[in-house]
Amino acid sequence: MIKYILLVVLLTSSLEGLKLHKKRTNFENVPKFKTLYTDQYLDHFNKRDDRTYKQRFLVNDEWFNPNDGPVFFYAGNEGDIESFWNNTGFMFDIAPVFQALVVFPEHRYYGESLPFGDSSFDQDKIGFLSVEQTMADYAVLLTKLQQDYNLCRKKNPIIAFGGSYGGILAAYMRYKYPNIVRGALAASAPIYLTAGLAPSTLFFQDVTNDFDKEPGCVPLVRQAFDAMENAAKQGDYKLLSEKFKLCEPISDAAGYKHLLLWMRNAFTIMAMVDYPYPASFLGDLPAWPVRFACQQLVNDTAKGVDILSSFKNLASILYNDTSKCFDIYEQFIECADPTSCGLGNDAKSWDYQACTELNTVQETNGVSDMFPVISYNEELREQYCLKTWGVKVRKEWPSIQFWGKHIKTATNIVFSNGLLDPWHNGGPLTNVSDSLVAVIIEDGAHHLDLRGSDPNDPQSVKIARYLEIEQIIKWIEEARKEPCEKF
Amino acid sequence: MIKYILLVVLLTSSLEGLKLHKKRTNFENVPKFKTLYTDQYLDHFNKRDDRTYKQRFLVNDEWFNPNDGPVFFYAGNEGDIESFWNNTGFMFDIAPVFQALVVFPEHRYYGESLPFGDSSFDQDKIGFLSVEQTMADYAVLLTKLQQDYNLCRKKNPIIAFGGSYGGILAAYMRYKYPNIVRGALAASAPIYLTAGLAPSTLFFQDVTNDFDKEPGCVPLVRQAFDAMENAAKQGDYKLLSEKFKLCEPISDAAGYKHLLLWMRNAFTIMAMVDYPYPASFLGDLPAWPVRFACQQLVNDTAKGVDILSSFKNLASILYNDTSKCFDIYEQFIECADPTSCGLGNDAKSWDYQACTELNTVQETNGVSDMFPVISYNEELREQYCLKTWGVKVRKEWPSIQFWGKHIKTATNIVFSNGLLDPWHNGGPLTNVSDSLVAVIIEDGAHHLDLRGSDPNDPQSVKIARYLEIEQIIKWIEEARKEPCEKF
Repeated sequence: MIKYILLVVLLTSSLEGLKLHKKRTNFENVPKFKTLYTDQYLDHFNKRDDRTYKQRFLVNDEWFNPNDGPVFFYAGNEGDIESFWNNTGFMFDIAPVFQALVVFPEHRYYGESLPFGDSSFDQDKIGFLSVEQTMADYAVLLTKLQQDYNLCRKKNPIIAFGGSYGGILAAYMRYKYPNIVRGALAASAPIYLTAGLAPSTLFFQDVTNDFDKEPGCVPLVRQAFDAMENAAKQGDYKLLSEKFKLCEPISDAAGYKHLLLWMRNAFTIMAMVDYPYPASFLGDLPAWPVRFACQQLVNDTAKGVDILSSFKNLASILYNDTSKCFDIYEQFIECADPTSCGLGNDAKSWDYQACTELNTVQETNGVSDMFPVISYNEELREQYCLKTWGVKVRKEWPSIQFWGKHIKTATNIVFSNGLLDPWHNGGPLTNVSDSLVAVIIEDGAHHLDLRGSDPNDPQSVKIARYLEIEQIIKWIEEARKEPCEKF
Repeated sequence: MIKYILLVVLLTSSLEGLKLHKKRTNFENVPKFKTLYTDQYLDHFNKRDDRTYKQRFLVNDEWFNPNDGPVFFYAGNEGDIESFWNNTGFMFDIAPVFQALVVFPEHRYYGESLPFGDSSFDQDKIGFLSVEQTMADYAVLLTKLQQDYNLCRKKNPIIAFGGSYGGILAAYMRYKYPNIVRGALAASAPIYLTAGLAPSTLFFQDVTNDFDKEPGCVPLVRQAFDAMENAAKQGDYKLLSEKFKLCEPISDAAGYKHLLLWMRNAFTIMAMVDYPYPASFLGDLPAWPVRFACQQLVNDTAKGVDILSSFKNLASILYNDTSKCFDIYEQFIECADPTSCGLGNDAKSWDYQACTELNTVQETNGVSDMFPVISYNEELREQYCLKTWGVKVRKEWPSIQFWGKHIKTATNIVFSNGLLDPWHNGGPLTNVSDSLVAVIIEDGAHHLDLRGSDPNDPQSVKIARYLEIEQIIKWIEEARKEPCEKF
């Protein structure tokens, strides 16, 4: 208890944040982990299916005190678990103080945790990828760990952490397995949006708002998209291909649409990871990439660079042109979730999830946002998902299974959201109850609070982390009142 | 609101119970129902599987007031849903006062709701029978009904009812789908026991305690089992076959064991349905069958009837000897759950569930109970389940998935238990929190409170029903505070 008080005093007195590890951005001081594997049932809900797969999980127990250390559990989301280990420094900043055991299980069908290796993404094998199966994996693993480490509920409460879809999973774990997870920090978790309860134009409107904070930026972006539109209308795909230095020139409307999607994606990513320092989370980006991009665009055009070339220069902040040209078909892949498309296995799995349990229908209209009209609605999603994955979208399922807006009965969850994050309007922004607490980070982008402390952190994220620590301490103290039972 | 106050006044002033329907036992006044069917996904958790099946559900809307009537939802359990409609009169006693819509969905793989018809029980088809799939069926159906009837959360809160395994499901629905179910009456729901958290000798010890309330009964039962044991030791299966009037004589230790199980089962059933009036729920039995059986046993032996014949006479209270003999192989089938074995499809499904998610390992030792030693433990269960269903028992799953003893985060559940019910020690007998309320019925057997009001009801069940109504009103009033939103 005393150590927690010290921690809070430290935080409140200076609000300088925790400085146990600096320079998180280069992963230089990221703590080591042990890589372990556990056998999980492929199908937790069909007991006739005895097949198992190897789930990877990362563990650090160097600070763990079995007598009263909690378990810090990161709810692995849509990617290689090591990348989340390298981008969730907040947990390592506070784990030594809490003397916590740190566990990062990998989400099934991502990273190394592929039930059927590279053929996991075949239509007849992908069906075991679901939010429910994943949560069951986590519940079973955590129960196993409490046996292996001889943990008890009183001394070693489990706190879930997660960002984005991982934050959604952390919250859901508290909804569905409060017997196992004592509390959850759900950072940037757009739970309402993914349950299909947000307008489809919300996301890109908020991307636009981010860029609109920079003087003169949005009008130039609109001007650039207009210039593209004019060229396309005249069939001048050659001009566009040259101006944007495309490795593979476009020659028709479909190619033009792909160029627009690639361009729009640059704004999406910069808005999402608008961090106050250089970071390489969704691409190598400079500090405050939105400001950086806008200033460059304004400066370029002021210098007389034509608008299309200036626009290409903006894209090159995110995209590599190592071959002296841009491969827009490699750098952006059309998929079910227009905000997150990529190459490789992880992108395939995410695409399947965006067709099943995560509603991510976002579109632009050029009115409430600065982008060209690119329609995407439930009907188009349904067509795409049937064609690509052979699945009929079960539209109502997510809000039935994961409670939609009716989450009042849950307890011990922090929903944190940064106002720079275009996802923030998709989640709870005010307290739902005394123990469903909303934390707002005025100058924060996508789950900035989960990242390690940095000298450039704005005050608002330091305060957010303080509030989160306060809640975590509350959850741990709550556990102390219970007998020392197994989970 | 006023009508509820009237209801409570009525109940508290007289405590005579609700007399809207009498003579429930003969089903004479059981309200009518509409039989409806809905398409349900066979696999709610694998979106690649688009197969559906027809789930039956029964509806009565004759009293329903859409403006403020709740939905009374019975969580169908292991049998034909019509049999539960005919044995859950409490809901019909109060539904007119609450102006409730009454819905009884049938549990998948029971009654008519067989996904693959008669071949549903093949090893390659049974795997879609699970508690999780069943709960998803209910959640999806209830969401569909709110659309069909244009219900909203404020005006039409859904209250779940269930007895025994149905009570477990009602409670679980509130654990996992509190967005849909506002409160649950879980009658005689041994949630701890089925999660594997009770000693294997508990159940039959409580059966013994029931019979021990009748003077002179247990010593005679022990004497009778001893006499059987003596005959068996001498290999005198002929004597046993004659005394028990077996249609098919037994001739070896296996046959003898089956006779013992058949005999023990008579006690099990009589203890479970030790109701204050004749009932035909798990067999046609007289009022207070435990007392009836004991008095007959005592009288028979007092009259000089030999102990084995007296014992056979006791069994005949439950079992039919229409062919002038007892077919013990038809009247009792050995299975995974030694407390509930029978013939037919429903029994097959229950057997599978007892091998998967419902731990029902009960055994007798002749010390803490009055029965011969019949061992049954996890190891024997595992062997049986592997042999019969080809499933490896996942022993820890039920307490991981359904919270075991750690249910404190749930709200709005009444756990009612009758002290005559041998299952009562398997569930919560004291309040877990302000809104997880234990109701004890001193003179009640297995979910007597869910049955319709009867002139012979003991005072304790009338009080229990009053307490339950009080909670239901509380849940409905809670819903009134919310906006009129969809589920």
